[in-house]
Amino acid sequence: MSETNKQDYLVGVDLGGTKIMAGVFTPQLKCVGRAKVSTKPQRGPAGVIERIARCVQDAVDECDLQLKQVRAIGIGAPGAVDPESGRVIFAPNLEWEGVSLRKDLEKQLELPVHIENDANLCTLGVHATELGAKPRNLVGIFIGTGIGAGMILNGQLYSGFNHAAGEIGHMVISVGGPKCSCGNNGCFEAVAARRAIFREIQNAVKEGKKTLLTEMLGEDLTDMRSGDLRKAIRRGDKLVERVVEEAAEYTGVAVANVINLLNPEIVVLGGGVIDALEDEMMAIIIETAKDYAMSGVAKGIDIIATKIGDDAGITGGAVLAKRESK
Amino acid sequence: MSETNKQDYLVGVDLGGTKIMAGVFTPQLKCVGRAKVSTKPQRGPAGVIERIARCVQDAVDECDLQLKQVRAIGIGAPGAVDPESGRVIFAPNLEWEGVSLRKDLEKQLELPVHIENDANLCTLGVHATELGAKPRNLVGIFIGTGIGAGMILNGQLYSGFNHAAGEIGHMVISVGGPKCSCGNNGCFEAVAARRAIFREIQNAVKEGKKTLLTEMLGEDLTDMRSGDLRKAIRRGDKLVERVVEEAAEYTGVAVANVINLLNPEIVVLGGGVIDALEDEMMAIIIETAKDYAMSGVAKGIDIIATKIGDDAGITGGAVLAKRESK
Repeated sequence: MSETNKQDYLVGVDLGGTKIMAGVFTPQLKCVGRAKVSTKPQRGPAGVIERIARCVQDAVDECDLQLKQVRAIGIGAPGAVDPESGRVIFAPNLEWEGVSLRKDLEKQLELPVHIENDANLCTLGVHATELGAKPRNLVGIFIGTGIGAGMILNGQLYSGFNHAAGEIGHMVISVGGPKCSCGNNGCFEAVAARRAIFREIQNAVKEGKKTLLTEMLGEDLTDMRSGDLRKAIRRGDKLVERVVEEAAEYTGVAVANVINLLNPEIVVLGGGVIDALEDEMMAIIIETAKDYAMSGVAKGIDIIATKIGDDAGITGGAVLAKRESK
Repeated sequence: MSETNKQDYLVGVDLGGTKIMAGVFTPQLKCVGRAKVSTKPQRGPAGVIERIARCVQDAVDECDLQLKQVRAIGIGAPGAVDPESGRVIFAPNLEWEGVSLRKDLEKQLELPVHIENDANLCTLGVHATELGAKPRNLVGIFIGTGIGAGMILNGQLYSGFNHAAGEIGHMVISVGGPKCSCGNNGCFEAVAARRAIFREIQNAVKEGKKTLLTEMLGEDLTDMRSGDLRKAIRRGDKLVERVVEEAAEYTGVAVANVINLLNPEIVVLGGGVIDALEDEMMAIIIETAKDYAMSGVAKGIDIIATKIGDDAGITGGAVLAKRESK
């Protein structure tokens, strides 16, 4: 591979409700530096955009480069994004509506900025690195506090009429099931996201059931994290194992729904819950999905967990920056 | 509009498990003749293809034209179809696997033939005629004996990795719900297709519940049709009304799932159940879908029933024939 030209670095940014991550990449998509700051959404769009600019500068400085050596920046935002106008249409976690993210950030950094929905960018990141940019039809499902999906269909990123596609967390899979944060019942998110898993465990504890988690974290289970569940299961905690298995079964049903409707070549799973509990969940997810998917549709389809974890967003940002600045 | 040139007619064919319909269309997509024959799938692919050829000839003869005045033929088949190779990959209702439909029919009729999945063709037919070919993102949901979907995404027909996308009837919306013909439980088809509605009514009758349908059709409700349900409801039959309302509610949930995942501009509903029960079902479907869809995603989205009914398939066939023979 040729040495990276002075101005050929790419920056990918993952803008979340809690934290902002930035990564500096070579044109071959190797990450050479990174930075992380808290988002502080309460400061409003101008304050957050300032923090994005600072995070980008930190990441560039981290690898002894300068902003003028960066060709372009790609950002994933958590909501409906219009890549054409460069505006975030709405992003509930940030309480943003109609924010001119691209224009404002270009002004601050004097570099070309491209924006996309965060789940779409994560899917693009996995597609470009782990999958060699090959599949024409790919769905990425990211399970964390909530659940979102990114889609590449017929070879293109797909975002729909209001740039709001991918709300797979609110696909109803269990009519009349548990209440969801959206107000409805039985959403995928209400039975399989981190919040749902934690709620099940907390309810069981209130009913007097035993779990190692109370020894590890105290009776009220404050500061519980997905990693704690993994530790408890590996130490033989049957309650946590059952709750996580149930979430994996529901996830398998949701994956089958996606397969039956969209017949993608690959379904990629990622996000904090999968990163922490891959070994505990993936086999069950795959088995359940194959059970519920129609055989003619599912033939030859892969269901995998991404290996790039938390880096999917910044990697996708770099891919977008590279593609758009060609 | 100019007079149709001698060789400019288009033929659309809707190949179903029970019947074959063919329509002759002007280049302006006006239907000028039609024919219908039974499919007789038990005669095998060669026998069925012969019947398709006869049906096309009947339709052409019906409007006093000759085959040589037809520019091309477009056919929708009920299953996974590869438009490139012209083969039906599999079609469970016909018990077909790997049938060279295009080649065999071209040989018989000496005309260019183009093939597609039937639900995709119905969606294309609605798109081209009722919607002025405008929406870039459209999902058609067709509810009859079973339930299938056709999709136009980013302006293109979408069929996925195995050409088998659109199996929306087997999207699970009620985990652990009623048994489906596919072997799973809680599929959309198992709670909202014609078979599910009929089963609910028959079970209620067995439990001793009263319905006008038994007066109309006899105690065992043989030969029940969707139109009978409409008649019963209009005569004040509360049992039938409740069962149809429930099916409409489930359909609304499925429509919301499609909206949340794919954010299409329009969702079109069609098929025998909707054709017969539009007035009884659509208001409930729309209300339920708007209830379950995320507001930012659903903004400005239309949910409509197609007005072209049974003609969607042959119209879509003509659209395909026109587009592919340009």
